[in-house]
Amino acid sequence: METKKFCLTERQMPTQWYNIVADMPNKPLPPLHPATKQPVTKEQMSAIFAEELIDQEMSTERFIDIPEEVQEIYKIWRPSPLVRATGLEKALGTPAKIYFKNESVSPAGSHKPNTAVPQAYYNYKQGIRHLTTETGAGQWGAAIAFAAKHFGLDVQVFMVKVSYEQKPYRRLMMNTWGAECIASPSTITASGRAALERDPDCSGSLGLAISEAVEMALQHPEDTRYCLGSVLNHVILHQTVIGQEAVAQMEMAGAEPDVVIGCFGGGSNFAGLGFPFLRRNLVEGRNIRIVAVEPSSCPKLTRGTFQYDFGDVAGFTPLLPMYTLGHDFQPSDIHAGGLRYHGAGSIVSQLLKDGLVEARSLPQTETLAAGILFAKTEGIIPAPESTHAIAAAIREALQAKEEGTPRTILFNLSGNGVIDLYAYEQYLAGALRDYVPGDDEIAKTVSQLSKII
Amino acid sequence: METKKFCLTERQMPTQWYNIVADMPNKPLPPLHPATKQPVTKEQMSAIFAEELIDQEMSTERFIDIPEEVQEIYKIWRPSPLVRATGLEKALGTPAKIYFKNESVSPAGSHKPNTAVPQAYYNYKQGIRHLTTETGAGQWGAAIAFAAKHFGLDVQVFMVKVSYEQKPYRRLMMNTWGAECIASPSTITASGRAALERDPDCSGSLGLAISEAVEMALQHPEDTRYCLGSVLNHVILHQTVIGQEAVAQMEMAGAEPDVVIGCFGGGSNFAGLGFPFLRRNLVEGRNIRIVAVEPSSCPKLTRGTFQYDFGDVAGFTPLLPMYTLGHDFQPSDIHAGGLRYHGAGSIVSQLLKDGLVEARSLPQTETLAAGILFAKTEGIIPAPESTHAIAAAIREALQAKEEGTPRTILFNLSGNGVIDLYAYEQYLAGALRDYVPGDDEIAKTVSQLSKII
Repeated sequence: METKKFCLTERQMPTQWYNIVADMPNKPLPPLHPATKQPVTKEQMSAIFAEELIDQEMSTERFIDIPEEVQEIYKIWRPSPLVRATGLEKALGTPAKIYFKNESVSPAGSHKPNTAVPQAYYNYKQGIRHLTTETGAGQWGAAIAFAAKHFGLDVQVFMVKVSYEQKPYRRLMMNTWGAECIASPSTITASGRAALERDPDCSGSLGLAISEAVEMALQHPEDTRYCLGSVLNHVILHQTVIGQEAVAQMEMAGAEPDVVIGCFGGGSNFAGLGFPFLRRNLVEGRNIRIVAVEPSSCPKLTRGTFQYDFGDVAGFTPLLPMYTLGHDFQPSDIHAGGLRYHGAGSIVSQLLKDGLVEARSLPQTETLAAGILFAKTEGIIPAPESTHAIAAAIREALQAKEEGTPRTILFNLSGNGVIDLYAYEQYLAGALRDYVPGDDEIAKTVSQLSKII
Repeated sequence: METKKFCLTERQMPTQWYNIVADMPNKPLPPLHPATKQPVTKEQMSAIFAEELIDQEMSTERFIDIPEEVQEIYKIWRPSPLVRATGLEKALGTPAKIYFKNESVSPAGSHKPNTAVPQAYYNYKQGIRHLTTETGAGQWGAAIAFAAKHFGLDVQVFMVKVSYEQKPYRRLMMNTWGAECIASPSTITASGRAALERDPDCSGSLGLAISEAVEMALQHPEDTRYCLGSVLNHVILHQTVIGQEAVAQMEMAGAEPDVVIGCFGGGSNFAGLGFPFLRRNLVEGRNIRIVAVEPSSCPKLTRGTFQYDFGDVAGFTPLLPMYTLGHDFQPSDIHAGGLRYHGAGSIVSQLLKDGLVEARSLPQTETLAAGILFAKTEGIIPAPESTHAIAAAIREALQAKEEGTPRTILFNLSGNGVIDLYAYEQYLAGALRDYVPGDDEIAKTVSQLSKII
């Protein structure tokens, strides 16, 4: 029988994170202070973030050691499997080989703990006792709750109120791991109270939740810091454990990917899988396509502009060089909550500008159809975010079939959808809508998938 | 760094199931026809179950080959990891070594697919097109939905109405995999209609759901069969992949268990892990304790009687030789829905009668406290059922600490609790109650755990 899962041993886990800045032909532009328009300094950032994380944010070192304490916790779910999607291949009748990296196996259900654990660790090492953060759908909040407990840190998660009410299971996960989860807007911060004064029924937004979390951290500089689950350089750095493992596992499988695919919100799961493969293009002259897939309704990479913009809605963060739809862009209410972000991280933005990575956008009707086909053929119910990567992989596989050519496809299954099943219910009930007009290729692919499902 | 997870390769997966009947000093008594009191024949059972499953139910062969088609699907999540619970050991400050077999990694979230896949396969091979079954909390229904799709079978799951309404996520999992999930009592069977006539607000029971599922199968003998997720010999047989893997993995770890623990509902996860170790007692003269843990509120092993009884509430099944609380026993509304069953399988019952396995009962306040400690130290949020095994393992570890002696403990993490988080919410809110009076040891252990949590 053919091997389906390619697994590394704990001893084969990466012991360093890979920093692609060292290999970039054009380095990313620095973040700027909004008032002075000068690059922000470490001092300015240290009231918000732990110092070692700021060092990593600014580092140009190629490899950075993973602390043993972090590796020890990674072992709860890492190394994660690389899987040959034989069931999906068969259903599509494609000559393509499809592999996926299964990051849904972490206790929190996604790739987010890869960075939550080191963020908690560096804060703990600095003597910090309390972490604050925001969360939308709750994947990041759950990950930091899981991670912080290992170092005895308290966590306050400000969760966008509409999700807090709609997704009680994610909130309960945070509580079970010992974190406090607060509906945002809350009455415990000035930003929250101001929002509630303007509109007592305010259902919250990610931007507002960030403001509340940052405010709490700034009020207690002696023992509290803020942390973020995507976008920033140090977050992307931590996620490169994914791609480093995958490079070794593809070698085990005796395969070389033609294309590497990740869904795209702030960039962390995409970069985590893609950058160690992109390195082979930059250093060894390979020609692997690295493809980011965003929702059609939040198309910063394919339809945004490259400019300095704020990372949050309220404009509290430094100005970041990014592909953006504008920091006041209001994304549609799609199910992939983790992809509803107006901008891209500065490293990914620079790489896209330089033509070193590709981007495409897909609508949720197509991605959820792809998700159902994946659930039926590979067993795992994918997160709505991850269905974007699956749908793009299926397009590549169908194209290979049409052309009658081989192709090796690798994508990141960034999370499972066990707590997001409402999205599938809506699809199955025919109640799912897209927020942008579709085109012929979308209609054709959805029709093909409906026949196979 | 010490190894935390002991993983087998796909090539090291068992290729045969182990049938303990071959090694039992006293064979289990046969099931009897309720009218004639004679052993039921294969012909009588073949209207309900696929023939190859009936052969396995009656087999005395020591090893039975696992079909390649089944092994192929097992590879989606098997072999499952054996994990050293280093975080839990540290929190308890115990000299004991604690290992757990992680069966929560299957797409359905529990050990149930180990038998759902071969059951679907043998039905498919016989030309059956439709399966019917019942489910309580939904773990079994989800597993059979996952398994059946791989062989193109349709599935009708009758889900106890109160759970259907309270646990929408499990129902949505079944739908996503393509199964039909029907609230029981329904209007599509005579049993359902009769129940609704008696009481239009009837919230259903497992016994009634079984009646509906069996009725549907009997109405369509040409292409429909019924299937069951625990209790029966062939179900327990399929689950021995767990223990066979664990025997090999404990050898990898260089450890020999003193005690092997599983939670107990109908017996399948307990026997699945325990029987390959029990074999070493029977064949090699080892002295490993094999311990079943049931809820204090449903204590058939510790307080039931050994007698012939029906497997269902309504009395439709053959008479089975079992430890039972009486087939009309109404279990309390505890969170571990999978353990709310009045009887034990006939093999386990015989082994308990012969003193070859042990049993103990624990209340849910203690088990959920153990579950929270496990979630905080090992990351994984356990199913309420599995917390019974964890709590018993913790008692063993605390006893070893008190005595200052080493002990090697192995338990089965039969499932994760991601869709059962409401149980944890109730515990954390102090709203959880026990249904039987506690004793001093319970109070002492709960108090110890509260201090560590």
